[in-house]
Amino acid sequence: MTLDLKSLVRTIPDYPKKGILFRDITTLIEHPEGFKESVERIASAHRGLNITHVAGIEARGFIFGAGVAIALGVGFVPIRKKGKLPGETIGQNYALEYGVDTIEIHADVLNADDNVLLVDDLIATGGTAIAAVSLLRRTGATISRAAFVIDLPDLGGASKLRDEGVEVDELISFSGD
Amino acid sequence: MTLDLKSLVRTIPDYPKKGILFRDITTLIEHPEGFKESVERIASAHRGLNITHVAGIEARGFIFGAGVAIALGVGFVPIRKKGKLPGETIGQNYALEYGVDTIEIHADVLNADDNVLLVDDLIATGGTAIAAVSLLRRTGATISRAAFVIDLPDLGGASKLRDEGVEVDELISFSGD
Repeated sequence: MTLDLKSLVRTIPDYPKKGILFRDITTLIEHPEGFKESVERIASAHRGLNITHVAGIEARGFIFGAGVAIALGVGFVPIRKKGKLPGETIGQNYALEYGVDTIEIHADVLNADDNVLLVDDLIATGGTAIAAVSLLRRTGATISRAAFVIDLPDLGGASKLRDEGVEVDELISFSGD
Repeated sequence: MTLDLKSLVRTIPDYPKKGILFRDITTLIEHPEGFKESVERIASAHRGLNITHVAGIEARGFIFGAGVAIALGVGFVPIRKKGKLPGETIGQNYALEYGVDTIEIHADVLNADDNVLLVDDLIATGGTAIAAVSLLRRTGATISRAAFVIDLPDLGGASKLRDEGVEVDELISFSGD
């Protein structure tokens, strides 16, 4: 099966604000083969690499990350917004366009024996992804790989993540348009 | 494989407030076999029922719902908090302990030919689940089934959902403790 995954992503102009072309993955996940193949392609690229956990970033990263974790037969670690996890957490701040945000994981979920694949739906400037890698590394675990359904290479996030020593895979790239 | 899924759920006392025993599914999803089997049991119970879509409620419902959608080979419909979906939406208000909240779906995602399975991590009083069923039904689709990883039957949500004509399955039940 070779499906054109890119054609299943809907582009919404001027969302969330004027001048932005928003890449909407809901049309991809609502497509049975499109969703299944997205997850299977990410999983296939990471078999045999001794991945012990998939970490997904709230909320769209949960949709793809959960599927990849099951396909790889490993546990799923949710990275959540501040105050959403019930146990003891560690947090990482990161800069937004205006202000600062915080993501958290449970403090006891990973250790130095673990090898984590980070999964999210999209990488743009990479602020959240780099914060997620820093956060996950503070547990002592190895985070050498990240996978995104969509990369916006013009915004440089994947490149910054590679500078952090993370190998980055993406299924779909939107560049210069 | 018969796994005791209930033993993989962690109970956190006095969260989010004093007197509440919070049932934490993160320990279940971090367990490779526990997570996979949770999803597979829900999927197995709904094969051959002509389910066309799985709808999952933000954010923990995404984790299980995405897995079930892939296992059933159907599309995944995210039910999100207000303002999170980029396309045209329809919304449904529901009462909280203090105040009101709103969930939304994309207006164009379902129609009268569709048969939706609602998935969430937990049903307690059922407020969100009943709002989700009302919202999904406004598209004309059939929503005859819902599945939860955890039911708290003392809080009556599953029973109220059955009164709405929805068949309810749960994997784990915490009652009277």
